Amino acid sequence: MIFRQLFEPVSSTYTYLLGCETTGQAMLIDPVVNAIDRDLQVLQSLRLTLALTLDTHIHADHITAALHLKQRVGSRIAAPAIDRLPCVDVGIEEGTPLQLGGIQVDPLHTPGHTEGHFAYRCIDNGSDRVFSGDALLIDGCGRTDFQNGDATALYKSVTEKLFALSDEVLVYPAHDYQNRRVSSIGQEKSRNPRLGHGRTLEEFKTIMSGLNLPYPKFIDYAVPGNRHCGVCPQDLPEQMREYCEHMAESPQG
Amino acid sequence: MIFRQLFEPVSSTYTYLLGCETTGQAMLIDPVVNAIDRDLQVLQSLRLTLALTLDTHIHADHITAALHLKQRVGSRIAAPAIDRLPCVDVGIEEGTPLQLGGIQVDPLHTPGHTEGHFAYRCIDNGSDRVFSGDALLIDGCGRTDFQNGDATALYKSVTEKLFALSDEVLVYPAHDYQNRRVSSIGQEKSRNPRLGHGRTLEEFKTIMSGLNLPYPKFIDYAVPGNRHCGVCPQDLPEQMREYCEHMAESPQG
Repeated sequence: MIFRQLFEPVSSTYTYLLGCETTGQAMLIDPVVNAIDRDLQVLQSLRLTLALTLDTHIHADHITAALHLKQRVGSRIAAPAIDRLPCVDVGIEEGTPLQLGGIQVDPLHTPGHTEGHFAYRCIDNGSDRVFSGDALLIDGCGRTDFQNGDATALYKSVTEKLFALSDEVLVYPAHDYQNRRVSSIGQEKSRNPRLGHGRTLEEFKTIMSGLNLPYPKFIDYAVPGNRHCGVCPQDLPEQMREYCEHMAESPQG
Repeated sequence: MIFRQLFEPVSSTYTYLLGCETTGQAMLIDPVVNAIDRDLQVLQSLRLTLALTLDTHIHADHITAALHLKQRVGSRIAAPAIDRLPCVDVGIEEGTPLQLGGIQVDPLHTPGHTEGHFAYRCIDNGSDRVFSGDALLIDGCGRTDFQNGDATALYKSVTEKLFALSDEVLVYPAHDYQNRRVSSIGQEKSRNPRLGHGRTLEEFKTIMSGLNLPYPKFIDYAVPGNRHCGVCPQDLPEQMREYCEHMAESPQG
């Protein structure tokens, strides 16, 4: 399997490219709308055809590239079935692996950051990775105060589902704000300050309820846009133009 | 390939187990003498036979388990040829891959922490790892003030040889003192405070010459012992007994 980790700096999002060397097909996990040209260039340089986009959840901090990539290169849109988005081609459910050429992705329902959040595990011979979305970040986790977020649910998702994987499983998060790129289940179990080294549910709930995070500045545009698989709002204020900058400028967008 | 990352807490050393599922043979990279029983138990639980031990360099902070493992289970000892240790069965050189069943390890001469230091790269289908020894640690690097250590050489080893690998190559260091377990070349290139984000050689030399680290407390025992592939000193002071504790107590030791 061909693997690339791509970074989108406006929302500090990691997009993951998984490519099948045999069929030449690829998928992108959590592609970002303002990085479409970059993603297509990487795919082209690897001689891969984008067959599928796969989102971990309905993002609040960026707009998915799923719909625009479908319009530009014909990729199908995969996303959690539980969110019942009418624009989705492949509804993801736990227990039903997603197959693309030689690539198999096992969906893990990991609610808490959002109700419909999924992580995706991908075993490929010598590698065992989990794309943990916003459920588990390196030394952190996604917030739980919007989109039916629920600290108790997130605690269960991480400690009972993700931490049940073996220590060597690599953790590839959807974001990092300090240029960290990869961790492992063992690392997060031992040192994640919110969820690791034996944190109790009560401790986690106290941490999450005391974060005092600001209102997410892009959420009112991102969530409605992402419920349509990635529509950039017409009325985007000037100071938020970079979130859809590329799409506004691109003749194909 | 079967892969395990094992931690030895006295010296905060990571030992890596690489096992071939086809032949049932395994190698241990940087095994530690006081963790022999743990390592043999893990091998047994995985139904693997230890065929080889492989050290990255002559360690100053712990005693390698190479010789004792050879005595106990007949494993061969591989180590950098440049160090000319008479106890070594397989002298490692850059350009000559080490093969064990389906596992291939490519040695990379990476002097600087010690003159004879090697990193080992292992590509296994979907995984691409470099066992970076003490040359490159997560957000750090090994010291350069003993054993012909040389900051200029280490700078070249890391920036010209390890950073030449692709961003997604996983970095598995020989140590971490904060429970971090894995990084990637891309992560270290972008955020290693000593060697990443465009540090110049002059900056690196200034950092290394200003570390003011204490004299390594075990070096006078470890280096001579490791020059014999892991001999525990007879005259070990009581307060250092934990470095060889197991061997002193083990009837097979």
